Amino acid sequence: MPRIQLSALDAHWRAANYLAAGQIYLLDNPLLTEPLRPEHIKPRLLGHWGTSPGLTLVYTHLNRIIKDRGQDTLCIWGPGHGGPAVLAGSWLDGSYTQTYPDVTRDAAGMARLFRQFSFPGGVPSHVAPEVPGSIHEGGELGYSLAHAYGAAFDHPGLLVACVIGDGEAETGPLAASWHSTKFLDPVHDGAVLPILHLNGYKIANPTVLSRLPEAELDALLKGYGHEPLYVTGSDPRRVHRAFAQALDRALDRIDRIKAEAPTAQGRPRWPVIVLRTPKGWTGPETVDGEPVEDTWRSHQVPLAGVRDNPEHLRQLEQWLLSYRPRELFDADGRPTDQVRAGIPEGTKRLGSTPYANGGLRTRSLPIRPLEAFAVPVDKPGTTLHEPTRVLGGLLAGVMADTADRRDFRVVGPDETESNRLGALFAHTGKAWQAKTRPTDHHLARDGRVMEILSEHVCQGWLEGYLLTGRHGLFSSYEAFVHIVDSMVNQHIKWLKTSRALPWRAPIPSLNYLLTSHVWRQDHNGFSHQDPGFVDHVLNKSPEVLRVYLPPDANTLLSVAEHALESRDYVNVIVAGKQPCFDWLSLDEARAHCARGAGIWDWAGTDDGERTPDVVLACAGDVPTQEVLAASALLRAHLPDLAVRVVNVVDIARLMPREEHPHGMPDHAYDALFTRDKPVIFAYHGYPWLIHRLAYRRAGHAHLHVRGYKESGTTTTPFDMVVRNDLDRYRLVMDVIDRVPGLAVRASAVRQRMADARTRHHAWIRDHGTDLPEVASWAWPH
Amino acid sequence: MPRIQLSALDAHWRAANYLAAGQIYLLDNPLLTEPLRPEHIKPRLLGHWGTSPGLTLVYTHLNRIIKDRGQDTLCIWGPGHGGPAVLAGSWLDGSYTQTYPDVTRDAAGMARLFRQFSFPGGVPSHVAPEVPGSIHEGGELGYSLAHAYGAAFDHPGLLVACVIGDGEAETGPLAASWHSTKFLDPVHDGAVLPILHLNGYKIANPTVLSRLPEAELDALLKGYGHEPLYVTGSDPRRVHRAFAQALDRALDRIDRIKAEAPTAQGRPRWPVIVLRTPKGWTGPETVDGEPVEDTWRSHQVPLAGVRDNPEHLRQLEQWLLSYRPRELFDADGRPTDQVRAGIPEGTKRLGSTPYANGGLRTRSLPIRPLEAFAVPVDKPGTTLHEPTRVLGGLLAGVMADTADRRDFRVVGPDETESNRLGALFAHTGKAWQAKTRPTDHHLARDGRVMEILSEHVCQGWLEGYLLTGRHGLFSSYEAFVHIVDSMVNQHIKWLKTSRALPWRAPIPSLNYLLTSHVWRQDHNGFSHQDPGFVDHVLNKSPEVLRVYLPPDANTLLSVAEHALESRDYVNVIVAGKQPCFDWLSLDEARAHCARGAGIWDWAGTDDGERTPDVVLACAGDVPTQEVLAASALLRAHLPDLAVRVVNVVDIARLMPREEHPHGMPDHAYDALFTRDKPVIFAYHGYPWLIHRLAYRRAGHAHLHVRGYKESGTTTTPFDMVVRNDLDRYRLVMDVIDRVPGLAVRASAVRQRMADARTRHHAWIRDHGTDLPEVASWAWPH
Repeated sequence: MPRIQLSALDAHWRAANYLAAGQIYLLDNPLLTEPLRPEHIKPRLLGHWGTSPGLTLVYTHLNRIIKDRGQDTLCIWGPGHGGPAVLAGSWLDGSYTQTYPDVTRDAAGMARLFRQFSFPGGVPSHVAPEVPGSIHEGGELGYSLAHAYGAAFDHPGLLVACVIGDGEAETGPLAASWHSTKFLDPVHDGAVLPILHLNGYKIANPTVLSRLPEAELDALLKGYGHEPLYVTGSDPRRVHRAFAQALDRALDRIDRIKAEAPTAQGRPRWPVIVLRTPKGWTGPETVDGEPVEDTWRSHQVPLAGVRDNPEHLRQLEQWLLSYRPRELFDADGRPTDQVRAGIPEGTKRLGSTPYANGGLRTRSLPIRPLEAFAVPVDKPGTTLHEPTRVLGGLLAGVMADTADRRDFRVVGPDETESNRLGALFAHTGKAWQAKTRPTDHHLARDGRVMEILSEHVCQGWLEGYLLTGRHGLFSSYEAFVHIVDSMVNQHIKWLKTSRALPWRAPIPSLNYLLTSHVWRQDHNGFSHQDPGFVDHVLNKSPEVLRVYLPPDANTLLSVAEHALESRDYVNVIVAGKQPCFDWLSLDEARAHCARGAGIWDWAGTDDGERTPDVVLACAGDVPTQEVLAASALLRAHLPDLAVRVVNVVDIARLMPREEHPHGMPDHAYDALFTRDKPVIFAYHGYPWLIHRLAYRRAGHAHLHVRGYKESGTTTTPFDMVVRNDLDRYRLVMDVIDRVPGLAVRASAVRQRMADARTRHHAWIRDHGTDLPEVASWAWPH
Repeated sequence: MPRIQLSALDAHWRAANYLAAGQIYLLDNPLLTEPLRPEHIKPRLLGHWGTSPGLTLVYTHLNRIIKDRGQDTLCIWGPGHGGPAVLAGSWLDGSYTQTYPDVTRDAAGMARLFRQFSFPGGVPSHVAPEVPGSIHEGGELGYSLAHAYGAAFDHPGLLVACVIGDGEAETGPLAASWHSTKFLDPVHDGAVLPILHLNGYKIANPTVLSRLPEAELDALLKGYGHEPLYVTGSDPRRVHRAFAQALDRALDRIDRIKAEAPTAQGRPRWPVIVLRTPKGWTGPETVDGEPVEDTWRSHQVPLAGVRDNPEHLRQLEQWLLSYRPRELFDADGRPTDQVRAGIPEGTKRLGSTPYANGGLRTRSLPIRPLEAFAVPVDKPGTTLHEPTRVLGGLLAGVMADTADRRDFRVVGPDETESNRLGALFAHTGKAWQAKTRPTDHHLARDGRVMEILSEHVCQGWLEGYLLTGRHGLFSSYEAFVHIVDSMVNQHIKWLKTSRALPWRAPIPSLNYLLTSHVWRQDHNGFSHQDPGFVDHVLNKSPEVLRVYLPPDANTLLSVAEHALESRDYVNVIVAGKQPCFDWLSLDEARAHCARGAGIWDWAGTDDGERTPDVVLACAGDVPTQEVLAASALLRAHLPDLAVRVVNVVDIARLMPREEHPHGMPDHAYDALFTRDKPVIFAYHGYPWLIHRLAYRRAGHAHLHVRGYKESGTTTTPFDMVVRNDLDRYRLVMDVIDRVPGLAVRASAVRQRMADARTRHHAWIRDHGTDLPEVASWAWPH
């Protein structure tokens, strides 16, 4: 039994419940020092009471085990919409006041705490970045458990408790995350203790897991690889006792697992606690004759008419007084010694753990000089490399140099090898705690490449890892990264908000490598073709977003180095894994990436001096190749045409400076693209994105964009660009159609281009391969 | 034991395997009538062998039970990338030839079948819409089981077999879908038989489920509510026998469940089959000294160098001959009687079931005249209604009138009531097979409102329901519909491809009601604010996409009616659930929605005649209110200014006609928006979307768009529009700033507007509510 008295735990719990309800309702009279009157009540009653008493219970009891055991603990509050509960806990443990000194731990501060909650200009209703001790918002449900595992990886001394609501447990990402048990290394990683909180209801419905027969729920959790411990009840004293015992048993078991881990065979069965308490517990039992406590009616605000309905007001007062606030707070509103008896000290407090402010723990990543990995480029466009394989060397170096620190991981849905990043496996393995067979490759209990066929889990793991201060990269099929559209939304929102909080230290950026991209789905076809993630993220806060389309191996190295060194961004890097011409030496690549967009003198015929007749612009590896091939065709067939080639790596450069920190000023844009010449822009993705970025530019009326327009199937690489009118021949025709006077003068050239497209169609029909002249093409020197 | 001999089953299976391998490799010599030479081999070897022999096994044995029992059966092929297997099955059962008469069921047709596979201009490598008998692509993994349940709902006589790969089983959506057992009504719905195919590997890794201890896997499946049946082996004879027995037991159990259902208490334990066979089974055991069969190396093409490597060529020939093709096909390439012995007839064939061509079974939905639900509007902007509640009446009518037909369902993640669609519950309940308690509301075993807290499962269920010919609507929080971004991508791709296949009958549209939208997240704040789904879908094939932003209740009725009657679209309807002014009578609403965009004469001061000085445009309910309030302010303060108000319901009207079938011709656009007057456009979502749609219009340089710019939190409705510069005062200031000559003349008015914003900030800080003048505003008559 705990050294801290159950009565002290109950006092803390009642205090937290009082504070949670107070935040939802009270504008004034925080200590109920006078009878409750309508003017003490907030004009708009917002927030979620239903989940709150369960969260306060967990906060109270985690305090106790932290204090008893000196255990470093981070808690992920899955039901993050129960913001009042977590705010209450952090106010009680002093973290809140330490973070926000004007919200003092006394009556005045309590009044502020109450007033600011869900109040315009105050704090949000959820466990948002503003809440000390949190790395998880919990508005969009589903990611708590993956976040918890991400936080636990490579933190061997850390306990990550994770409260999972039974609503959230119905989501796909959460359901998949249970299998993280097969990826947690008891030697090198911390422990995750899921606390499945079955309060029975979501918004207006019962939850699936709460209505399973006991045996079925038990089978399910054992099937996930857990040993379940059950705590059920509505009598606080019994629940306190049972929950304290369950926590002790769980932590004892974790200690045993970790002690035995270095010599253990097989995968441990980690504990899970099932906490079954009523929704809206300790709130009004009935309102207006309808049952509320322990039903879906307690989800948000159980008493909705308090300002106008005297009976509701009376019920609220009774409810608040039922916590016996005079026993919990002194006359000045300070929590009594009994309430504070179970609270740990300093950075052990849940509200003050540095694991929840990961930037405080971040170390710069050791990145070897790029020279070690760069490919030599004497002449552009003569050699071919697989860009991601070259990147693999860089990542392998980081992996090697973090072997002891263990603060770098690469995640992906089983594509590290197929995305040509296999060099990593010289320095680490793929994390795997389940059974192995002799034919398996690269599996290792302590591996830092993480592969599970769930983009959701990959993303959640990585977010948790980054939010607790470590580094990483997510390599994904370009099309399927849409699976985490909504997750990246939430992470971007978290970063945007965090950047405005001075006490939150910057964390390593979330780095995406999008490869196996739209243009090279030879095996898979239409379902694997979607370049729209860039469009999706560019809707979000520009201060957080960076999008790079390196055209070759060395530029990929340069942007990857930059991304891995950056903080508080989401970096989206789109790069192919197929052999791709090397255009720039490392030095040239660095200079080009630093500018983000620039003229490739050697590729055009305007000598960098003449005003061009036309600009051929490109962004992305395949479009760059087609633009250079088009430029070579123009040089051969229309040698007096002044063609300028512009390559864009950093797509935000196209935006106005007011809309993105990387946006070019107009004069710089005009210097690259001109104000009045035709610009034929070959873009990797949906063509209208370029228009959306550049519509305010002087030359926009002359901008003509080619890109992917949903014309996809299983076919050859060149057929893909032909189908989408992005091919060299079409680009030359575009030039001829748009440069004034050329239509007549170059009509024979135009016909040759049209003929080449016809020849392509005939050849591919007969041979199933690309035209030899395309397959063997190289930049003419 | 089956009436059909196991030897016949084995013959069918070998024939299907032969055909699957042949599709991956052979360009010619389909029957191996001459020794295999390099020129018989495809130049590009594409496809996925690894999963194929498992799929052919399932095809073979499903044929048998269909024939034995006359059981209507649809199969969802989760590993849809194993296209060759399913194509083989449908060619053998004659469905393929019936659908594509030039691919005859003989040697010439076999040659075509082989050549076209993954060949440019041929058929995709996956089980795409082109494949008869399929409703599921299986490229982006995760949705097979939800599709299966969707297909089974309200099809009481149907068996839906669902092959789930162990790779797919790691995904979130699949993991969540297992709990569909709590939503399948054995009386009114069909049966779903999951066949979990553990072949052990995904791309380069073992799979989680295949490496669980037997007891753990068993517990997991029982935890999902299933009774597992196991079939394990690599000896074909034993596996045939065991799988046939397992299928018989499963179907017997299903028959028993359904027979007992009308009087049974509680939820049945449906069978699941676990089929454990080697990946790449019957393919090359080793290649170049490395083990291939039963390892990850057999995932795609086990022998990669066949054209150049004589040893590989020899191995391929041996492999193909190991199926003993001369026993399987006669000299003309026709499958022998033995191969065909187990194949069912007519529409019972898996490749010919009308359930996989759902449009054939679709009936028009009974929709009552809108007059029954419309709100009376004598004068615009004087009464308020909750638009979605009004829509609820319409939907409830449909629900009532389909009580016997049972071909309409409403899905959503537990928000039907909170989204104000509760009228439905007068005519149906929420589907629920688990335990109930007295405080539950509206739960019913035969309910046709489907609520689970997983947007993935909701979407998957609905897709399966629609693809098999029925109707439905998905009501979602606007922000969280991004959770299914990637799923709607795949559904749009399916529809786009299907529309080009004359044999696929049009199916009911996928209708989204996006409510609880960005402007009204009073309880929830920033994490719940994202209007970007419209941007996401508008990247996709325009012929499939329709986006509506009805400004009030009657316009919502009109677009909903249109959406429910349509076919082969994805209709996205964005509409609020909060009280909203009624602007148009039903007749006006119908006329306005038919036009998609139009001038609201009564709201402007240009009398519909004068050339306006400025156009105030709006799309969405909240922007419409702010524009009308701005128009009223302008009328009061600058009465001689000619203001035109334009409302846009159908957002694609803004696009050029060449880019969307609903796009307006330029003259129509100019007639609405003018070519040269300032247009202040208040848009519901991200403002740049409007630019992206309208950048080609003559007046684009004068277009100024206000919308949501990621400035969100928990706050009041009016504070949200102020934070994002979409409020009436800001719009008036925009007008003054942009109409030539007004800056000086109206500087005092501009100051009053700025003062009103300042007053707002002060008021909200002190009161936490909106300015009384805003809260009580109504259109001035």
